[in-house]
Amino acid sequence: MPQTSDKLQITEQLLEAVNANNEDYAQQILTSLVPEEIAEILEATPPKQRYPLWVHLTPEIQGEVIGHTNEEVRSSLLQQLDNKEIIELTEELGTDDITDIVQSLPEEEQQHVLDNLSDEERTAVETALSYPENTAGGLMSTDIVTVRSDVSLEVVLRLLRKMGSLPEATLDLIVRDREGKYEGVLRVNDLITNDEDTLVHELIKKKDAIKATTSDKDVAHYFEKNDIISAAVVDENNLILGRITIDDVVDIIREEAEHAQMASAGLTEEEDLFSPPLRSAKRRSFWLGINLLTALFASAVIGVFEATIQQIVALAILMPIVASMGGIAGTQTATIVIRALATGKLGAKNSRALVLKEGTVGFLNGLIWSVLTGATAAIWFDQLSLGMIFGAAMLLNLIAAAIAGAIIPLILNKLKIDPALASGLMLTTVTDSLGFFVFLGLATIILV
Amino acid sequence: MPQTSDKLQITEQLLEAVNANNEDYAQQILTSLVPEEIAEILEATPPKQRYPLWVHLTPEIQGEVIGHTNEEVRSSLLQQLDNKEIIELTEELGTDDITDIVQSLPEEEQQHVLDNLSDEERTAVETALSYPENTAGGLMSTDIVTVRSDVSLEVVLRLLRKMGSLPEATLDLIVRDREGKYEGVLRVNDLITNDEDTLVHELIKKKDAIKATTSDKDVAHYFEKNDIISAAVVDENNLILGRITIDDVVDIIREEAEHAQMASAGLTEEEDLFSPPLRSAKRRSFWLGINLLTALFASAVIGVFEATIQQIVALAILMPIVASMGGIAGTQTATIVIRALATGKLGAKNSRALVLKEGTVGFLNGLIWSVLTGATAAIWFDQLSLGMIFGAAMLLNLIAAAIAGAIIPLILNKLKIDPALASGLMLTTVTDSLGFFVFLGLATIILV
Repeated sequence: MPQTSDKLQITEQLLEAVNANNEDYAQQILTSLVPEEIAEILEATPPKQRYPLWVHLTPEIQGEVIGHTNEEVRSSLLQQLDNKEIIELTEELGTDDITDIVQSLPEEEQQHVLDNLSDEERTAVETALSYPENTAGGLMSTDIVTVRSDVSLEVVLRLLRKMGSLPEATLDLIVRDREGKYEGVLRVNDLITNDEDTLVHELIKKKDAIKATTSDKDVAHYFEKNDIISAAVVDENNLILGRITIDDVVDIIREEAEHAQMASAGLTEEEDLFSPPLRSAKRRSFWLGINLLTALFASAVIGVFEATIQQIVALAILMPIVASMGGIAGTQTATIVIRALATGKLGAKNSRALVLKEGTVGFLNGLIWSVLTGATAAIWFDQLSLGMIFGAAMLLNLIAAAIAGAIIPLILNKLKIDPALASGLMLTTVTDSLGFFVFLGLATIILV
Repeated sequence: MPQTSDKLQITEQLLEAVNANNEDYAQQILTSLVPEEIAEILEATPPKQRYPLWVHLTPEIQGEVIGHTNEEVRSSLLQQLDNKEIIELTEELGTDDITDIVQSLPEEEQQHVLDNLSDEERTAVETALSYPENTAGGLMSTDIVTVRSDVSLEVVLRLLRKMGSLPEATLDLIVRDREGKYEGVLRVNDLITNDEDTLVHELIKKKDAIKATTSDKDVAHYFEKNDIISAAVVDENNLILGRITIDDVVDIIREEAEHAQMASAGLTEEEDLFSPPLRSAKRRSFWLGINLLTALFASAVIGVFEATIQQIVALAILMPIVASMGGIAGTQTATIVIRALATGKLGAKNSRALVLKEGTVGFLNGLIWSVLTGATAAIWFDQLSLGMIFGAAMLLNLIAAAIAGAIIPLILNKLKIDPALASGLMLTTVTDSLGFFVFLGLATIILV
């Protein structure tokens, strides 16, 4: 079992072999890797070296690898292939992987790939394409085994022996009625531990099927909560369309959890490590632009107190501390609230309890830090009144930060705006502006 | 299949029923939920209401529920139970769940639970306890079915029929030799699609077993990469100890991904939503204290230029903008680098390429924003030279921010310090201090 550190070594050896045109050694390394690992290596490789590595792969492996790369790397690789190459690499793939690839192609190329599929495959891919990518219908695979409920286990076993193998991760066989509607599942466990004369419907488990229109997040939560390995997907008439397995769900769970981390910096989880710098700069510019507006607002607040600062320059020296402490305290609260919202743990009732709790935390922290920072400022500038004003501003800003940190994500969530994305900047606007305003305002009233 | 919004309603109805002592209705709701859902509801419930809800559960359900709550909620619930109650709730559990509970108990209570187990269970739990919690040995379950390689499928099927049922998620039977050493797996698929006379060793798959000392992160990556549902766990002599299934791995993956998000605000992923405020305040104080030190350092930098600010107050108004833009740009870079490090995508070779790329992004962004912000400042204060100095400081700080954002997490990672935890504060120290220094320094040289 390779460890993280080994993996980096392998990546480097592989890239060296490719650069040195050491065909044999490169092949030797590549055959020791699974497609998901090769996909990770491609993502970790600067674009210039990606294509030379890619051409070392057989079309079969290429197909499996490209299904595991992120959206951006996948599109950039597909752009460098002609229609014939794309068709070649889809040839050995399951219909769910083919669907992923077709979704990343420009429309005119999509048709070429579809035309080359068998009727059965094309129907499966077209059904999957008719559902948005982030729904159960867009995720599902159509490689399924269904059995009728009115047959005996002996018939089922004969059928399976004739097929010779089952799709990966098949713990349950999907049971249908005569019209193809979903009835439940026959656990493979029950199939092998029961008498062959038993009828399927005697052993059927009434497990919920997933509607094709269910969002991928709800699918993931459902799997996670019920410790499910696979589930059938049905349409609005309960007709069986396919199934979803836990390995697809694992990807969703990782993406969902990473989303909050990336969104808080204005990034998406699909961001390519080696995007062209100009594209990265453009993408990140938007976020910097929004931040500039909030920073200008905070500066305008300082501008109001220009005369006060001119008299007491110590204020300019101390004011970033008030803002910075408020920003950190508010972010701590917001991070907890954003995670609780993402995992569906916050409703109207407990939100109030949470705002109250976070407000109390803010007050307690405010007390500690207002005393400490106030004393520091009083000693630094040898002026007790300045220290007291600084401490008071710190207390007020830390309480406000905690409450804003709790309320902003809750409001954004109500307004259907992604709290992970927008909370950070809104929160800093509050903590910066309010911090400057309270500190400079108190100083103007008391000291000037 | 319940959606997120339904879940909140259910939680609220349940808490109302519990508060109103409406026993029947509370029971009715509870029986409609799986243990994982009840665990989530407990986590989302303020502590005072937690225990009244808890006592509505049968010991059997309590056992399953407590295995799914986070560390902090689990310990607080266990503290309220006496030894008899704790033993009752472990009675129906698998040994992996019992291990989790024992790990959360104070040492003297651990022995009570262990004494009450069957010899077989105690050995299993003690074996699991002998490995750290975050290793394969600490995660594994010992509810496994093993078969010998020198028997026929008919013998295996007879054995399974006699057992009557298999452990959850059993896609593979673990194959052992005569001494109990791991040989590989027999896929249940192969068991049912092959002739009953076939010998197990003809069908054996040489799947890697996981060493009990492997870290949980490496286990998760291995499962994720190879789309595995379960794997055997062995000791250093290749003796079979147990197995790990994907549902445990899903929890690790979620925790690992959430770790980066929580760590960036100085929090842990085990943080209870409703920790007592005093405990929360204490825990968060540490982080605020470190931030205060970095903020004081930045203020000291401003202090150096006290005389300059006294002459040109506009500098005090504009300086937070330089620092803030640098902070955002640096955070964007650091977020990408931290994620790439967590997923093992950055080594010595491509790190250099990445620092170069991020530096370029910083330069491009710097160009755009230095022109825009410089012009804004020149117009706002009607002074061209001030605008030019502001723009130049912005350019330099954005380039420095991008490079620091890339290099700081890389260095921390080298030093085996968690980059998700420490990068943010170190980065802000650089972008704030450098931003103030460059801007005020240039102004002092040119304008004063």
